[in-house]
Amino acid sequence: MGSILVVNGVLLTPLRIISTPGGDVLHAMRRDEAEHFGFGEAYFSKLQPGFIKGWKRHRKMQLNLIVPVGTIKFVIYDDRAESSTRGKYFSVTLSEGNYQRLTVPPMVWLAFQGVHTTESMLLNIASIPHDPKEVDKCGIDQIKFDWEVLR
Amino acid sequence: MGSILVVNGVLLTPLRIISTPGGDVLHAMRRDEAEHFGFGEAYFSKLQPGFIKGWKRHRKMQLNLIVPVGTIKFVIYDDRAESSTRGKYFSVTLSEGNYQRLTVPPMVWLAFQGVHTTESMLLNIASIPHDPKEVDKCGIDQIKFDWEVLR
Repeated sequence: MGSILVVNGVLLTPLRIISTPGGDVLHAMRRDEAEHFGFGEAYFSKLQPGFIKGWKRHRKMQLNLIVPVGTIKFVIYDDRAESSTRGKYFSVTLSEGNYQRLTVPPMVWLAFQGVHTTESMLLNIASIPHDPKEVDKCGIDQIKFDWEVLR
Repeated sequence: MGSILVVNGVLLTPLRIISTPGGDVLHAMRRDEAEHFGFGEAYFSKLQPGFIKGWKRHRKMQLNLIVPVGTIKFVIYDDRAESSTRGKYFSVTLSEGNYQRLTVPPMVWLAFQGVHTTESMLLNIASIPHDPKEVDKCGIDQIKFDWEVLR
């Protein structure tokens, strides 16, 4: 699928944008990929400029994150005991200008920030339906990262 | 699923919006619904203000259309020979303010217009992957409808 491995289980997959009169068409996921990852639920998350959502860790859900609107900076922190990339951070900024799908495995920490001047939005095609019982949360200051301050 | 039948095979399904600090979460589709409709491909289509895309008729694809950004007016024209709603139009305007999923069966004509002051966007969770051979097209003037003129 042209994916790139960055941290154990984290994938970046370039997606196509087709220029069309009146507005672009942007790919998100094909059947074979949905079958590969499993399709549990699709939902959007909007993000006001500068706002950070996280940290969250899903125990079971694999996330497939796509940013068709605005610009979102994602940060992943790997503290999995048996991971060869334990202690590592991975950061990527996605937008229509860097149009890729970010696949996040279970058991890593994720936070993300809207870094566009207007509202940003992601689509998550999640491998299982939403279940608050499989989500761990901690405060944004509990995992150190130098977030951008938007002016 | 709480769906409402409007024209044979056309469904409107209310979707949940969850108010969340920093930006809403908007549902799109759950696993049971994706299994019901079939998951072929998910893609976004952007729409500049006033622009109309269509008319198109898919011979095989069932569309599931969701509008998380802006406002889009959809018009469906049913000219199926054996349809009890033959000759009828159905129009609905979707946005975050009228947040529903529009299911469009194969073999009806569809066109849609961006009716927001800024760019609008839909997500289509289609029942089969894109295949230009199953799409019929005709000019916007070939099926009469009184489209809005945006000023």
